[in-house]
Amino acid sequence: MEKNRAENIWLAGNQQEDFLQENTIDCVILGYDQGQLKVLLLKWKYEEIWSLPGGHIHKSEDFDRAANRILEDRTGLTSIFLKQFYTFSRVDRTQSNIVEIATVKRILEKLPWPHLDWDVNWFIKRFITTGYFALVNMHQTHPTPDFLSERCEWIPLSKVPILLADHNEILEKALEYLRLQLNYLPIGLSLLPKKFTMKDLQLLYEAILRVPLERSNFQRKMLKLDILIRHEKQMTGAANKAPYLYSFDQERYAALIKEGMGFYFLPRSK
Amino acid sequence: MEKNRAENIWLAGNQQEDFLQENTIDCVILGYDQGQLKVLLLKWKYEEIWSLPGGHIHKSEDFDRAANRILEDRTGLTSIFLKQFYTFSRVDRTQSNIVEIATVKRILEKLPWPHLDWDVNWFIKRFITTGYFALVNMHQTHPTPDFLSERCEWIPLSKVPILLADHNEILEKALEYLRLQLNYLPIGLSLLPKKFTMKDLQLLYEAILRVPLERSNFQRKMLKLDILIRHEKQMTGAANKAPYLYSFDQERYAALIKEGMGFYFLPRSK
Repeated sequence: MEKNRAENIWLAGNQQEDFLQENTIDCVILGYDQGQLKVLLLKWKYEEIWSLPGGHIHKSEDFDRAANRILEDRTGLTSIFLKQFYTFSRVDRTQSNIVEIATVKRILEKLPWPHLDWDVNWFIKRFITTGYFALVNMHQTHPTPDFLSERCEWIPLSKVPILLADHNEILEKALEYLRLQLNYLPIGLSLLPKKFTMKDLQLLYEAILRVPLERSNFQRKMLKLDILIRHEKQMTGAANKAPYLYSFDQERYAALIKEGMGFYFLPRSK
Repeated sequence: MEKNRAENIWLAGNQQEDFLQENTIDCVILGYDQGQLKVLLLKWKYEEIWSLPGGHIHKSEDFDRAANRILEDRTGLTSIFLKQFYTFSRVDRTQSNIVEIATVKRILEKLPWPHLDWDVNWFIKRFITTGYFALVNMHQTHPTPDFLSERCEWIPLSKVPILLADHNEILEKALEYLRLQLNYLPIGLSLLPKKFTMKDLQLLYEAILRVPLERSNFQRKMLKLDILIRHEKQMTGAANKAPYLYSFDQERYAALIKEGMGFYFLPRSK
């Protein structure tokens, strides 16, 4: 609520002409919990419409700054792992799904805008949107709806509904980027809790790659990277079968992904 | 010249308001010759200013289409390997180098514009530019200057001058992208002639990675990919030392980079 007010104030301090007129930002914010990748989505007010969090860009902002502002507004997090991945420019990109423009317009007209003179047609014209991609520890976030939305929720990738405009396509592209850049992204560091088991780490990679991996091959290669610090065993009933807990050596992890991890895991089937 | 006229006609058929007002395209077009990576650059009219080829985007175009048009105008090539890699949005990006805005404006004022009423100030305001990246066989290209430029030339990466605006940064980002995506791009297929030796292929990878590679390791891994077709030996004086010529199995190559080549070459020093 606090955040929502802040967003209103931020909007209220500006006129439509203070923003870029052709560009917006949309964010694919990914978290991980219980073996599932999740994405942060907004449920709009008044109707069953879901979208990625996004926003307009102030004329005095570059895109990285705008994306950081949007992410902080929606999650409460600052200085998280955030990367631009693609710009979506299809001429008809806002008209490409089941939600009719007329419906969007009706919702926009109902909203209590801070300025009575804002033209709702401005929001539904052609915008080019640049996708940003964030990996966060979802348990540290405070999902907060924006001005248009009533809820901001973590939705498992397997349960993502049809989204507004081309947002499903944007999400797909972000996941493709994640897989392509696997060796260069702080996957484990950003998505896992501070301490985790080898199995947790493998489950995370399996969720991203969408294939089961061979356990001993994964463990051997991961240990060889020399980025893991071994701690006590995880507390369970059977002490002798309890797995070790690990954390990341953050400095070594950062150095490694700069060069690329330089390996591929074997799928379990081979 | 033919092409240059075509570009004029294309411009002449449009008013400034027919283009997107905040977005442009810039292209990093890479070729390879004699062990050197080269980039296609424009030398402007009247002054010693160099820039990447680029252009404005018609309101009825998506970015991919605009980038393809620009590439065809500059190289004569259609259906080449072309990929969006990053969008550059720094607020002061046009003012970030040694070429003063006043100089650019003076040149623009001298040009024989197809429309007398075009406002040169429009060209020097803030534009966000999206970078596209092309790999071409440079011997098949016909470099053609655009309206602003007198020459369009292949320049070795080691001899790239200071470029207009943030174009050096755009070039750097493209090369970073090339290295990160090495296993997913049709490097050899796009840049080498139809037939080549193993040494040619290794020199190409070394030029991109900027490290010497271990010869037998490279050859073994490359052959194992099963994308090479072996032909006759290259004609030289000493027949017994003549290397084999190879070409790519294009279908297998395309299938392989879809999944990623999945290996890393050993640097020679290790």
